[in-house]
Amino acid sequence: MNWIYIFDIVGVLVFAISGILTAIDNDFDVVGSAVIGLVTALGGGSLRDVMIGETPVGWMTDTNYLLTILIAMLVSYLFKKHILKLRKSMFFFDTIGIGLFTILGVQKTLAAGLDVSVALLMGIVSAVFGGVIRDVLTNIVPLIFRREIYAAACLAGGLVFILLEQILDTLYFNMGMSMLTVVIIRYLSVRNNWSLKFTSR
Amino acid sequence: MNWIYIFDIVGVLVFAISGILTAIDNDFDVVGSAVIGLVTALGGGSLRDVMIGETPVGWMTDTNYLLTILIAMLVSYLFKKHILKLRKSMFFFDTIGIGLFTILGVQKTLAAGLDVSVALLMGIVSAVFGGVIRDVLTNIVPLIFRREIYAAACLAGGLVFILLEQILDTLYFNMGMSMLTVVIIRYLSVRNNWSLKFTSR
Amino acid sequence: MNWIYIFDIVGVLVFAISGILTAIDNDFDVVGSAVIGLVTALGGGSLRDVMIGETPVGWMTDTNYLLTILIAMLVSYLFKKHILKLRKSMFFFDTIGIGLFTILGVQKTLAAGLDVSVALLMGIVSAVFGGVIRDVLTNIVPLIFRREIYAAACLAGGLVFILLEQILDTLYFNMGMSMLTVVIIRYLSVRNNWSLKFTSR
Repeated sequence: MNWIYIFDIVGVLVFAISGILTAIDNDFDVVGSAVIGLVTALGGGSLRDVMIGETPVGWMTDTNYLLTILIAMLVSYLFKKHILKLRKSMFFFDTIGIGLFTILGVQKTLAAGLDVSVALLMGIVSAVFGGVIRDVLTNIVPLIFRREIYAAACLAGGLVFILLEQILDTLYFNMGMSMLTVVIIRYLSVRNNWSLKFTSR
Repeated sequence: MNWIYIFDIVGVLVFAISGILTAIDNDFDVVGSAVIGLVTALGGGSLRDVMIGETPVGWMTDTNYLLTILIAMLVSYLFKKHILKLRKSMFFFDTIGIGLFTILGVQKTLAAGLDVSVALLMGIVSAVFGGVIRDVLTNIVPLIFRREIYAAACLAGGLVFILLEQILDTLYFNMGMSMLTVVIIRYLSVRNNWSLKFTSR
Repeated sequence: MNWIYIFDIVGVLVFAISGILTAIDNDFDVVGSAVIGLVTALGGGSLRDVMIGETPVGWMTDTNYLLTILIAMLVSYLFKKHILKLRKSMFFFDTIGIGLFTILGVQKTLAAGLDVSVALLMGIVSAVFGGVIRDVLTNIVPLIFRREIYAAACLAGGLVFILLEQILDTLYFNMGMSMLTVVIIRYLSVRNNWSLKFTSR
C-alpha cells in the first residue's frame, strides 16, 4: 500500500473541503466554490510545478485529484454542519497535509535538479500558496502571513527532512520525523498563540 | 475564411474593451488600463497554457493579439460613451467570447494529451480566469464566483462540445451547438436572475 | 567585472527591502515578510520566465538571488529606521532597478525568439509585476496602475533600448541610455506629479 499517495489524497481532500467551506461562507455559488476548493488544494503544487518547469502540472495526469475535489464538494455541501463540529480533526489532517505537501514539494524540486535552498522554498510554496491564492480570490489578506507559525512550521519540517535525508537512508522515518516537526510546532504555536515577529522597540 | 480565428480575435477585442472600461472606471492610468485590458482578454488562456506546458503562451507567437489590445485601447478611449450604450451587443459578443474560449481551451488541452475532465476544467479557466485576474487586480471579489450562471454556462457548453465531438464528426456544428448552449444558459440566467447555490436550510 | 550582474543583484536587494518594509508595515510575520520581499524582487521575472517558457525560472539556478533576499531580510529588520531615512537613495536604486529589469526582460524575451512587441511587454512585466503581486498579496489596488508614470517609464526605456540596439552595436551605451530614460522620466513625473490619463471631458 502506497501510504504517501493516500496521505496526499487525504491532504487534498481536507484542503479542498476547507476551501469550499470558506467559499460558501463568502456567498460563492456552486461553481465558484468548486474553483476555490480546487485552488486551495492544488494551487500551491501547481505554482511550484509551473515555476520549476514540470508541466503539465502534477494533478493533470492523475484524474484521482479532480475526483477528490468532486468528493470534497459532495462532502462539504451534504455534511456542512457536521464538518464544522469536526474542526479538531480537520486541524489535524490539515497539519498533516501541509507537512506532507512540504516534503513532496522538496522532493520534486530536488528531483528537478535544483538547489536545496530552492527546494526548501518550493516545499513551503507547495504547502501554503494554495491557501494564499484562496485568500486572494476571496479578497482577504492571506492570514498565514500574519498569524500563527504556519509557513515557519513548514520551513522547519522541510529543514528536518532535508537534513535527515542527507544522513539517513530511511525515507519513511525521515518523512515521519519531518511531519511530526510540523505537527508539534503548529500545535504548540496555535495552543500558545505564538507568532514570529521581530520587534526592536 | 477562418471563422474560428475571426471569432477568437473579436472575443479578445470585446474582453479587452470590457477590461479597459473597468480600469478607467477605477481611475487607472493609460498603461494600467492597457494591462487590465490585456489581462482580461488573454489572462485565462495564458494561465491555461502555462499550466498545461504550452509555452510561450499562445498569443505571444501571433502579434495580431497584441494589435487587438491596442485597437481595444483606441476604441475604448475614443468611443467610451458610445460603447456604454452598446451594452447589449457587448453582452452578446462577450457571451460568444466565453463560449468560444471554452471550446478552444478544451481543444488545446485535449491536443496536449490530457484527460477530458482536465480539458473541461481548462476550458472554463480559459473563459473565466481573465476576468478573475482583472477583478483581483482591481481588488474586488471576482463576481463570476458569486453572481449569474457564468462559469456554469461554460461548463455546460464544454460538456456539450466534448459529448458531440465523441459522436459527431462535424466540428463547426459541434462548436455552434456548444456556443448556443452557453448563450442560452447565460441569457436565461441573467434574464431570470438565476444563481446556482445549494441551500439545505 | 560584470556590471550588469552586479546591478541586477543590487536591484533585487532594493526591491526586496522595499517589499519587506511594506510587509512589516502591514503587520506580517517574519516568514510572510520574507515571502513578500522575494515576490517583490523576483515575481516579475518569474512571471515572465513562466510565460515565455524559460523554466526553471531564472533565479532558481543561481543561489545568489535567494542569498540576496536573506541579506535584504537582515538589513530590513536590523536597520529599519535608518533605511526609512534613505528614501531618496532607495528611490534612485529602485528606478535603476526597474530600468535594468526592463532591459533584461526585453533581452531574455528576444533571445527566446519572440517578437519585439512581446519583448517590450515582457520588459514591463519583469519590472513592475513584482510590485503588482506584492500589492495583491497585501490587498491593495496596485499603485503603479494609478499613480506616477511608472510602467510608462519602463515602456519608454524599453523602446529606447530596442531602437538603439537596432542601429548601434554598443550594448553598454544602449543600456545606459535606456536606464537614463527611465530615471529621467520617473524623476520628472514624481517631481511634477505627472500622471498619464486620457480625459475627453
